[in-house]
Amino acid sequence: MKYPDSIEQLIESLRRYPGVGKKTAERYALFTVNRMDHEAIDKIIEAYQKIKTDIFNCPICGNITDTDPCYICVDDSRDKETIIVVEEAKDVIVMEKTNKYHGLYHVLNGAISPSNGIGPDNINIKELLERLKDEQVKEVILATNLSNEGETTARYISRLLIDTDILVTRIAHGIPAGGNIEYADEITIFKALEGRRKI
Amino acid sequence: MKYPDSIEQLIESLRRYPGVGKKTAERYALFTVNRMDHEAIDKIIEAYQKIKTDIFNCPICGNITDTDPCYICVDDSRDKETIIVVEEAKDVIVMEKTNKYHGLYHVLNGAISPSNGIGPDNINIKELLERLKDEQVKEVILATNLSNEGETTARYISRLLIDTDILVTRIAHGIPAGGNIEYADEITIFKALEGRRKI
Repeated sequence: MKYPDSIEQLIESLRRYPGVGKKTAERYALFTVNRMDHEAIDKIIEAYQKIKTDIFNCPICGNITDTDPCYICVDDSRDKETIIVVEEAKDVIVMEKTNKYHGLYHVLNGAISPSNGIGPDNINIKELLERLKDEQVKEVILATNLSNEGETTARYISRLLIDTDILVTRIAHGIPAGGNIEYADEITIFKALEGRRKI
Repeated sequence: MKYPDSIEQLIESLRRYPGVGKKTAERYALFTVNRMDHEAIDKIIEAYQKIKTDIFNCPICGNITDTDPCYICVDDSRDKETIIVVEEAKDVIVMEKTNKYHGLYHVLNGAISPSNGIGPDNINIKELLERLKDEQVKEVILATNLSNEGETTARYISRLLIDTDILVTRIAHGIPAGGNIEYADEITIFKALEGRRKI
């Protein structure tokens, strides 16, 4: 009444991924067994092994990297006076895709969330403060998410920097490009009104 | 503007799973990097490796197994006169969970689907016919899905067995337990009417 042990073990492992329940994990495991050849499975194993051995957080910015420091921190052509603070490594990728920003980043690896037991000490805020002491940073752009956690984190960091000469800004929130006002949620509408500019 | 190679490799691998797009694969890969320790990653690697080395299709029934024959085919207490024919290994698990069936199974590993290039020779129909020659089977219960492919497959197999003494049956389709007629689709309603019984 159950699968062979190795399949059960894969199902249990895959269930740990966000949004993956028992049924989905089962579907993935059976797909592995029925539809993937050994070569494809070897590629997955190799990727997991390399992640274990090659990947770490950049000691400067906290971004995930396989070089020390990461390719952004090591790049001398980048503007060292600006740091964008984001919650996750994937936010760096998103920002970089715009090709419009040439400064540095700081990845918090999370956001303050008291209900989940995540306080300021559990994310890379201390490391940010250390950087700001040493480096020639003139502006910190807070690009945490527009969620309770992201807003709390942004407010927390801005308060820590209130007595410094560093300009602390928050990215704009509002109606997205191509977004229809009709379908925007109320927080977005509120932020769009709050952030209105003279034209 | 992209992740380290090992992360990109994992994203590419995980994208192969059904229903997993680029965004989801990215989320899984970053969860692996940020939220899984080496021990958890080792468990995943071990599971994939064991699937490669230990798992095969039962040479008798086609079910996925790590023993030869599988635990059902090897079980002498089971009724050898009945075979339920299913599309996938997971259907065996579902049937077994009922604890109401004590016969054997035959797993087709698919269903006839001309539009996907899957003909009768691409699924384990030949193996079923071989079994029926050798074994003392009196009834074949066709439990393929209530889809075009499942229905086609059931009809195909029933036609192959038309000149034998084997009783060929199809599992009942109708309104599910706890199901509201209001929300049932028309094929289910049709099948429920067609399969009506005197009370």
